Amino acid sequence: MQAMGVDLKQVKAALKAQVIETPSWGYGNSGTRFRVFKQKGIPRDPYEKMADAAMVHKLTGVCPKVALHIPWDKVADFADLQAHAAELGVSIGAINPNLFQDEEYKFGSVCNADPAVRRQAINHMLECVEIGKTVGSTVLSMWLADGTNYPGQGHFRQRRAWLEEAFAEVYAAMPENMRMLIEYKFFEPAWYHTDLPDWGTSLRIAQKLGPQAQVLVDTGHHPTGTNIPHVVANLIYEGRLGGFHFNDRKYADDDLMAGSIDPYQLFLIYNELVDAQVPDVAYMIDQSFCIEPKIPAMIRTVMNIQTAYAKALLVDRAALADRQAANDVLGAEGVLRDAYETDVRPVLAAVREEMGLNPDPLKAFYQSGYQERVNAERIGEGMSW
Amino acid sequence: MQAMGVDLKQVKAALKAQVIETPSWGYGNSGTRFRVFKQKGIPRDPYEKMADAAMVHKLTGVCPKVALHIPWDKVADFADLQAHAAELGVSIGAINPNLFQDEEYKFGSVCNADPAVRRQAINHMLECVEIGKTVGSTVLSMWLADGTNYPGQGHFRQRRAWLEEAFAEVYAAMPENMRMLIEYKFFEPAWYHTDLPDWGTSLRIAQKLGPQAQVLVDTGHHPTGTNIPHVVANLIYEGRLGGFHFNDRKYADDDLMAGSIDPYQLFLIYNELVDAQVPDVAYMIDQSFCIEPKIPAMIRTVMNIQTAYAKALLVDRAALADRQAANDVLGAEGVLRDAYETDVRPVLAAVREEMGLNPDPLKAFYQSGYQERVNAERIGEGMSW
Amino acid sequence: MQAMGVDLKQVKAALKAQVIETPSWGYGNSGTRFRVFKQKGIPRDPYEKMADAAMVHKLTGVCPKVALHIPWDKVADFADLQAHAAELGVSIGAINPNLFQDEEYKFGSVCNADPAVRRQAINHMLECVEIGKTVGSTVLSMWLADGTNYPGQGHFRQRRAWLEEAFAEVYAAMPENMRMLIEYKFFEPAWYHTDLPDWGTSLRIAQKLGPQAQVLVDTGHHPTGTNIPHVVANLIYEGRLGGFHFNDRKYADDDLMAGSIDPYQLFLIYNELVDAQVPDVAYMIDQSFCIEPKIPAMIRTVMNIQTAYAKALLVDRAALADRQAANDVLGAEGVLRDAYETDVRPVLAAVREEMGLNPDPLKAFYQSGYQERVNAERIGEGMSW
Amino acid sequence: MQAMGVDLKQVKAALKAQVIETPSWGYGNSGTRFRVFKQKGIPRDPYEKMADAAMVHKLTGVCPKVALHIPWDKVADFADLQAHAAELGVSIGAINPNLFQDEEYKFGSVCNADPAVRRQAINHMLECVEIGKTVGSTVLSMWLADGTNYPGQGHFRQRRAWLEEAFAEVYAAMPENMRMLIEYKFFEPAWYHTDLPDWGTSLRIAQKLGPQAQVLVDTGHHPTGTNIPHVVANLIYEGRLGGFHFNDRKYADDDLMAGSIDPYQLFLIYNELVDAQVPDVAYMIDQSFCIEPKIPAMIRTVMNIQTAYAKALLVDRAALADRQAANDVLGAEGVLRDAYETDVRPVLAAVREEMGLNPDPLKAFYQSGYQERVNAERIGEGMSW
Repeated sequence: MQAMGVDLKQVKAALKAQVIETPSWGYGNSGTRFRVFKQKGIPRDPYEKMADAAMVHKLTGVCPKVALHIPWDKVADFADLQAHAAELGVSIGAINPNLFQDEEYKFGSVCNADPAVRRQAINHMLECVEIGKTVGSTVLSMWLADGTNYPGQGHFRQRRAWLEEAFAEVYAAMPENMRMLIEYKFFEPAWYHTDLPDWGTSLRIAQKLGPQAQVLVDTGHHPTGTNIPHVVANLIYEGRLGGFHFNDRKYADDDLMAGSIDPYQLFLIYNELVDAQVPDVAYMIDQSFCIEPKIPAMIRTVMNIQTAYAKALLVDRAALADRQAANDVLGAEGVLRDAYETDVRPVLAAVREEMGLNPDPLKAFYQSGYQERVNAERIGEGMSW
Repeated sequence: MQAMGVDLKQVKAALKAQVIETPSWGYGNSGTRFRVFKQKGIPRDPYEKMADAAMVHKLTGVCPKVALHIPWDKVADFADLQAHAAELGVSIGAINPNLFQDEEYKFGSVCNADPAVRRQAINHMLECVEIGKTVGSTVLSMWLADGTNYPGQGHFRQRRAWLEEAFAEVYAAMPENMRMLIEYKFFEPAWYHTDLPDWGTSLRIAQKLGPQAQVLVDTGHHPTGTNIPHVVANLIYEGRLGGFHFNDRKYADDDLMAGSIDPYQLFLIYNELVDAQVPDVAYMIDQSFCIEPKIPAMIRTVMNIQTAYAKALLVDRAALADRQAANDVLGAEGVLRDAYETDVRPVLAAVREEMGLNPDPLKAFYQSGYQERVNAERIGEGMSW
Repeated sequence: MQAMGVDLKQVKAALKAQVIETPSWGYGNSGTRFRVFKQKGIPRDPYEKMADAAMVHKLTGVCPKVALHIPWDKVADFADLQAHAAELGVSIGAINPNLFQDEEYKFGSVCNADPAVRRQAINHMLECVEIGKTVGSTVLSMWLADGTNYPGQGHFRQRRAWLEEAFAEVYAAMPENMRMLIEYKFFEPAWYHTDLPDWGTSLRIAQKLGPQAQVLVDTGHHPTGTNIPHVVANLIYEGRLGGFHFNDRKYADDDLMAGSIDPYQLFLIYNELVDAQVPDVAYMIDQSFCIEPKIPAMIRTVMNIQTAYAKALLVDRAALADRQAANDVLGAEGVLRDAYETDVRPVLAAVREEMGLNPDPLKAFYQSGYQERVNAERIGEGMSW
Repeated sequence: MQAMGVDLKQVKAALKAQVIETPSWGYGNSGTRFRVFKQKGIPRDPYEKMADAAMVHKLTGVCPKVALHIPWDKVADFADLQAHAAELGVSIGAINPNLFQDEEYKFGSVCNADPAVRRQAINHMLECVEIGKTVGSTVLSMWLADGTNYPGQGHFRQRRAWLEEAFAEVYAAMPENMRMLIEYKFFEPAWYHTDLPDWGTSLRIAQKLGPQAQVLVDTGHHPTGTNIPHVVANLIYEGRLGGFHFNDRKYADDDLMAGSIDPYQLFLIYNELVDAQVPDVAYMIDQSFCIEPKIPAMIRTVMNIQTAYAKALLVDRAALADRQAANDVLGAEGVLRDAYETDVRPVLAAVREEMGLNPDPLKAFYQSGYQERVNAERIGEGMSW
């Protein structure tokens, strides 16, 4: 790999320093509008979700944080939950307000024509800021399901004004060390229009709010054919790339394991990140497994992300810049391809061993007896989202 | 309209003879994977669904049939349900087996690697054939949720063989007056591949099964950009157009009201139908209203379909053929446009009045007090799908 | 129509005041990458293009402006061309620099890694500013073909910086009464990425440049499924909607006649425009007719745009706002539908007659003998783009 | 690799036996509708194209065949061209009739409403059959540009009948050892509809024609999101997979180098091919390089195809079948991933060395001086398509 112009020691150091956040809801039951197939051993409360997340961290070494979704993960004492997490070796990451499941949100939350509903939504977000303060979270992760299903149903510009008004109130309540990450989504669950459809809208709102507001890129939330690495580069250019929700997709927001459908795209996203060396990006997974066993799927996802990162670290950037400067199309493309074609499994295995981990985290999980244990212990209804 | 080369009397006669089938599940609670918002006055059993469907027929005059979904609409005595329907002025139309909600169908039904699950699915379809016989239904409407979420998960050709084997057994059990309509869907709820993704697959299977098997076109089940009128024409050409599931969409299978997003496309579909004068096509609605009041949305849908049909009936076919033969692009396009630009609301109002109906079915519904009555009567949990 | 809550006199006045700009290149030969089919009577120079554009204005009454493309429309004396246009009853509208046909632009223009090419591109734009000053044009319409075909070919952020640098130099050279309209395009002719892919990028650049920079929406330049009316609303909200390039499409940038594939969408775009009453929007047509006769296709397009505008003017805005405020999905949608279902051909015919025009501009063209005359006169090669 | 359950000797043997056909037109100038950038050293006649193709074969060892496009590659004496090719070490592969560049094809070829044009198209195809006989070609590769740009322009079913009539006449003229491969394309250059839009249509027509008719899959001709490996599997299932036109794409029919945008998809296609062991599939490249140097881009493409094939050969099929039978989603997916993650560059280098070739064909080309030589020799206009 020295031949590729990279220092293997630095590559390994970067891989060891990687931090990926897993979502509490990824450990619960989830599914499609047609059916939620329930699994055994599913956590029955946020404490048990923390245990599953901690197991993923124990085996991969790069997942020390867990995102919460409120009110799904609401507990009587958040400081206690955080202490519990700390004992297990993890900590609470992003706080995700839920603005789509209350009965009142049938026609939207912060973009609802009814001011009482907008107030309810704002209050919920303010509550989430407080929870964030309690648990020491520095990320408020905002996703709206707001939108309309039919032409004429809503007034686009008025809804936008309501949205900005609501977010401004929440922004003002955030402590200095908290960032608001504004997600966008092209469609679903609103079909005709979504109020935050694209990175352009999220960016504009973030800019109006202030420096603590940034954009969150969910890799499954774009129209098919979108060049997501370019979107990432543009957000870096604007200084507003706040974080990721990783997952993969074939056509819609399928929430499949990151890197499972288009692994080259994930590599190309990491290529932008390695190139720009952006600090403070929150690398979060956002997946809902319909048929996959939860913990193995999460581990597999983490491994896929590591693979993409490792390959991006191998890109010979001097050679790439040289070929780009010469308008050498095939030469430049070849530099990326060389890194991508490299089998990084040995490097990743070595990194894990140097971290005191089993080189094969998936195998380690299957051998751990963890699943059998929770299947036996967790009697009763598992949590779902 | 005589100027357009059409006979208004014939147009009206065709509009009066139109038959649109509404789905029992369209009257129940439904939603997205994020949330099902429940409504008041929702039917609590199939008998009450029949009442709602009968109300739609009473007001529109063109919806005498109701599709059933089994086991959602399973009752102890189907003959009794049919008799109840008849009393209300409607009858049972297509029977839709459900092959996606049993726990066993987690990895598919007729394409499941487990032979016991395939057997269960076949038995359920055979049961539906029996129900169809009992209620005098002539249409077995087959939609599969089978598919995979990841590359490698399933063996494509083996699954296809299982699918054909299963359908062949069901086909053999159908009485002579029953047709099997084979639906297809590009994606969802399986994300990586669906076993019946396109009309080509459905057509091939129908051809192998025999003359009683045909293709069902759901207008929301194609990749964006597909020319659905052309698909319809091709199926007519092959003699295998069996029916429709009407609805509209912006990007995915949104199940919005037919004609609400792209009314011109619905007109162009009807243009093919009027041109070809195909007998025995089942015109069915398949929509699941997430936020719309159920009965008004169904009436609105029926009106939209009537609008498309009326405009298609106004197309001056001799002029169209003449311009097509001359390769006169703008001239031919203009013939369609002339029909489409016509305001057909007066014709439809006249048709309704001649049928003894209120010219405005939606207004008639709001004035009927029906909704208030069922809201009051239907205490307890409404049905959902 | 008074029943719809609108004043017919005002509707007519608005329709008479409408200004649509036709493109000089729409009168020349154009085609696909597979073939350019040449037509008879095609203009052989910009003067003859002006004549064709003037004919469209003479028949429609709403097309007094003609967009130029430089160097396609380069003449020795632009003041003379402008005088010629004025004599014919039209004037020069937007100036469109061409940044994609010089040999040097093989790997891009303002985003090219070669500084000499970037300089050439900037100089060409500066030349266009000068031409604009000469002819009194107030719109500089910027479209880039810049992009890459392969991952790694270009450095996204570096290219973005070059782009902004180039535009800033041009912006600084513009007179106070000139606006720079920044177009974007999702793909083509670059396949992997385009440097101006979406409205978000164009908006950001416009904001950095200053108040004279705005965004240009080409209705064919979005990923399929995009809610263009929402994009329009968002740009209005930001105060940066500068103009349109109207055309229609089925899947790619097909450059078909506006309103020919999805007429409802064109209506919904105009619904936003009428609602917001934005001043100073440049309504331009950008179409390249592969098989259609040029002038009739242009007239048909103008008529389609008039149709959409007329229907949007008929929307009962008070009723719409009322239903939106009540979260009445079907009611609000019904208000739009009522306007759309209205046959506005009689209103448009009346408007034309009041303007002293033939109520049927297309028929008037065919009867004028114009095409036969230019077919006979224009011996030799017609212009192409 | 033995650990993966595969025999490396067999893998190598398969890689050596691979046959990829390059297209004559891939060596000529080509571009987009916006611009064709001409390159140096471009062949000036079909003889020189053969030389370039022979160079690709000489360096890769797996490209012994060259597809012709008629009339682009029309020569006075085809036997002489074939002899010339043979001398260079290659032979003529598929014959591609051109049905889109004659002036008469403005409104289509075999689907044109004008019977004289349909006759012209049929005659041209018959001429291609004769050329095929002369040069010993066994593949007639049919692609139509036929379609319409507007609703109403053509009569779908009538056009389909004309299409089948034309193909039947050509089919009847084919010798026994010739196959007709019927290509399909979702859109372009016709925008509203194409007469051969999808594999379903091509399959139906092939079935009606007879056993010598099969379907040709161009990997760039599907709507975005299509599962092409599934399409391939379905065609194998029907016994009608005739061949491929390899290339890659981001959104449209971009004709980029195969495996350059989505290399995993190319692997998954080969996974189906290796699994089914289909004989007699024509593996053809169909690319038109807009900005890439022609010969290096062709070599790179061949290498990418080899990479995909090599990885597919490494799939542990017994393990895959075992995991599929167990409905083990992650296990089955993991078997494919293991093969894909393997770096096959060493195997491919070894294969080349065993074949007496330079292990790096691209480097070998750059060192060969071939490009410099043809740049100097080929004075005058290069061929374009």
